[in-house]
Amino acid sequence: MPSELEIKILESLRDVPDFPKKGIVFKDITPLLKNPELLNLTIKALAAEVLKTEANIIIGLEARGFIFGSLLAQELKLPFVPIRKLGKLPWKTKKIEYALEYGTASIELHEDALSKGDKVIIIDDLLATGGTCEAACKLIESFEAKVVLCAFVIELAFLKGRSLLEKHSKVISLSKVK
Amino acid sequence: MPSELEIKILESLRDVPDFPKKGIVFKDITPLLKNPELLNLTIKALAAEVLKTEANIIIGLEARGFIFGSLLAQELKLPFVPIRKLGKLPWKTKKIEYALEYGTASIELHEDALSKGDKVIIIDDLLATGGTCEAACKLIESFEAKVVLCAFVIELAFLKGRSLLEKHSKVISLSKVK
Repeated sequence: MPSELEIKILESLRDVPDFPKKGIVFKDITPLLKNPELLNLTIKALAAEVLKTEANIIIGLEARGFIFGSLLAQELKLPFVPIRKLGKLPWKTKKIEYALEYGTASIELHEDALSKGDKVIIIDDLLATGGTCEAACKLIESFEAKVVLCAFVIELAFLKGRSLLEKHSKVISLSKVK
Repeated sequence: MPSELEIKILESLRDVPDFPKKGIVFKDITPLLKNPELLNLTIKALAAEVLKTEANIIIGLEARGFIFGSLLAQELKLPFVPIRKLGKLPWKTKKIEYALEYGTASIELHEDALSKGDKVIIIDDLLATGGTCEAACKLIESFEAKVVLCAFVIELAFLKGRSLLEKHSKVISLSKVK
């Protein structure tokens, strides 16, 4: 049975048909961002999950993951580290390329972003196919750090992205679109 | 005389020569993000400035402005609204095009992001030439909303971006690079 928070999150989302392309119904989170009470409940619920782990670093995926990731990191007084798209981080980076439906993309971390043995949380707003987050897990593991939790506000459960990530980490989402 | 916070912020930044192009020394904020105590002091200082206004909405500029903007909005329990680069917001938008050194760029707001009479804070990590933030001011004003403060963590004072923005709003920065 969905929790009260899950119902509130799902009700807050705006469905946008045919974005970013025909046939896809995009879940717009801007109404959630405009509701400070609901956003606070969302962050508190994510924080409760993080506290079940021994995480010492919160990573957010560009760009909407920066919002939830930095809020969560400050809630728990943990360091925040951004994973960015290719060419956006200014200093020396490690990068990983991954497959998209058409072509490839790359994401990066600064070379000093993580240390061996770090226990890392990855945060993003939405779990769809899981391709970007899987690449993030592999990139983090290349530092000999461990992903202890991949956490999402919304999970498009019908896309089964979770199955890619469970090879690397525990996975949770606060709300599921079936 | 610089405040203790200004000194701490400036000391936290990493200078990256020749990024994004030759001759520019980029101010890397990732060490600040990784320091939760300093990030908290930064947000508290921005919040003190916002409390001098009657702002009812916090806007962050993509992508690093999402971090400081959402933290500030939650600190003050105000709505957070993202201004995004062209093509990233899923629903109906208003957009504005502005000049870059070479060519142009566009930024967007959802059509329901603001209402007439809203009092808006714009947050970004860094004030350089001010071109993007000036475009953001004009876009916000097209909703008959008012920008009451443009707030930055770092100001590259030698670029004089402030002069573009002061036609629209009060401007503050927590630290200045001369």
